[in-house]
Amino acid sequence: MPPIRSVLRLAASSLLALGLFTAVVSAQTDPLPSWNDGAARQAILDFVARTTTEGSADFVPPEARIAAFDQDGTLWVEHPIYTEFRFVMDRVPDLVTAHPELAEKPGFAAILSKDEKKIAALDPRELFEVLLATLSGMTPDALGREVNAWLKTARDPRWHRPFIDLTYLPMQEVLSYLRANGYKTFIATGGSVGVVAPYSEEFYGIPPEQVSGSAQSLKFEIVDGKPVLMREPKLALENIEAGKIENFRMVYGRTPYAQFGNSSSDDQQALQYVKASPGLRLSVAILHDDAEREYAYGPAQGLPDSPVGTFSQEMYDLGEKEGWVIVSMKNDWKKVFAFEE
Amino acid sequence: MPPIRSVLRLAASSLLALGLFTAVVSAQTDPLPSWNDGAARQAILDFVARTTTEGSADFVPPEARIAAFDQDGTLWVEHPIYTEFRFVMDRVPDLVTAHPELAEKPGFAAILSKDEKKIAALDPRELFEVLLATLSGMTPDALGREVNAWLKTARDPRWHRPFIDLTYLPMQEVLSYLRANGYKTFIATGGSVGVVAPYSEEFYGIPPEQVSGSAQSLKFEIVDGKPVLMREPKLALENIEAGKIENFRMVYGRTPYAQFGNSSSDDQQALQYVKASPGLRLSVAILHDDAEREYAYGPAQGLPDSPVGTFSQEMYDLGEKEGWVIVSMKNDWKKVFAFEE
Repeated sequence: MPPIRSVLRLAASSLLALGLFTAVVSAQTDPLPSWNDGAARQAILDFVARTTTEGSADFVPPEARIAAFDQDGTLWVEHPIYTEFRFVMDRVPDLVTAHPELAEKPGFAAILSKDEKKIAALDPRELFEVLLATLSGMTPDALGREVNAWLKTARDPRWHRPFIDLTYLPMQEVLSYLRANGYKTFIATGGSVGVVAPYSEEFYGIPPEQVSGSAQSLKFEIVDGKPVLMREPKLALENIEAGKIENFRMVYGRTPYAQFGNSSSDDQQALQYVKASPGLRLSVAILHDDAEREYAYGPAQGLPDSPVGTFSQEMYDLGEKEGWVIVSMKNDWKKVFAFEE
Repeated sequence: MPPIRSVLRLAASSLLALGLFTAVVSAQTDPLPSWNDGAARQAILDFVARTTTEGSADFVPPEARIAAFDQDGTLWVEHPIYTEFRFVMDRVPDLVTAHPELAEKPGFAAILSKDEKKIAALDPRELFEVLLATLSGMTPDALGREVNAWLKTARDPRWHRPFIDLTYLPMQEVLSYLRANGYKTFIATGGSVGVVAPYSEEFYGIPPEQVSGSAQSLKFEIVDGKPVLMREPKLALENIEAGKIENFRMVYGRTPYAQFGNSSSDDQQALQYVKASPGLRLSVAILHDDAEREYAYGPAQGLPDSPVGTFSQEMYDLGEKEGWVIVSMKNDWKKVFAFEE
């Protein structure tokens, strides 16, 4: 049995973990200081107020307050190449030396060409072919250590900063604000849960058990008399297109009340399903329209299509029709990154 | 922004949710009153003390405190027929009328025979063949409503009680005790997550997002202009044998510190993997050796084999060798059910 003192210490740290002290502090201040006044910011504030005020017709009990966030292009920069893919690119030359036949596959060929345009043009399934070949045959713990070691030294090629700096400050504020109001925050990424979960707590305050992603099978084996789980070159869960919401609902048994995404390739159906679910729901789509501070891309702005985080005109029209919040990075965000002046 | 008063109310209810008030109260009392003094009870108490006392060499930070529980035979009665299977049996005659070819399959044939011995002898994959055929073509929410409606009226054939009464009181105490000490409790069932998650909060205080189980695929469809997710007759996750720990680790990105189970058919590898993981780990296997108050079954006691929750001699020997806690229901449990005198 725990001594009472340590129970009280735990109570205090639990309050901190729940963000409640933050909520008390920020109750007098703006919870979304990096957002400009406007319809998007107001819609988020209204949603939280209406779903967390007891007696409100839209009140959501604390246990059902689930919010899910796409990662690439929603919580951090995805252009021109997904960060996860940068992580695996360094492994490719050695792997192709060992298995020369891989050089024929489009993903491997693009990487070996070192042509960033070719790499950026790969579609999700071509990317996964490379991921499966490079991120197999190790335990999930070993992969987690490698990912975190890489993130400590890797720098992005445009800002020359660690990738944690490329998370969007306004979205970090939304995560904290939702948690301060009793929401459990989840990641729902099209990328690999085995890559994202190891850093999700440090980068976003989201524990690994709340990270949903495409997932490679694990296989139980006895190695030197010791049980281990080995990553297999096989996708057990594919969070592409509708797979993201199908797998989230299957695994967690809950439909989020708030869904954040940006891409027609894996967020559209999730945003659509959440918004159409009973009760007051919030679907937020981030439009990358800020070529100066970040990037501008996607047909919804009349820009060329791109396999990385495309935002189609069809998705834009659907969002307008269904009452999603469409966030303009250019107009709705006062700052994009914490490192800006 | 939330008014300070509601923040404080939320803080109080969070403490309650975390079980901290319970911990303060029970610090002076026995947290496991339905357990007899003995090695099993003491091992659980020691594990919790050593992993939650700051400064202890075995201290586990709160965010990593994960405990996983098998359901059937570990949290409630599984003999002679899994409750989930009782739930689907009533659906079979209509289904066979519509699809007469199903009558040839062993699971359907056994149910149509109404011979409980034949039904009890089906193996997990024969059971799943029936489950997949009967629990498809509806949304997960519709299934959840049906499960909960059924649980309200169904009675077990031996005690003639609602199934919630067939949960084990000593295990309910372990769940509460672990939560009071900062552990997050999960279910890791070989059964269907889509069936168990809808009642897990009411029955065990475990929210649906912390229920891992065998899982049927969901498919996103537009029906009458509205997006829906439909259950497919296909297992996306199969928690049989090593699948239980493979899928848990894949989905949640964490290895439990404490694992509870009872069956060679889906708990053995999980218990083995958890116990062998770094740090102080607790693997607990429940031995059904109480024919009077519950049931006695399994080769580990020299009793006949049974496809329902068998406990093999091999698993018993492995547990002894690896230092699992093997719980004798007969000797370690003062009471099995809350309804006992």
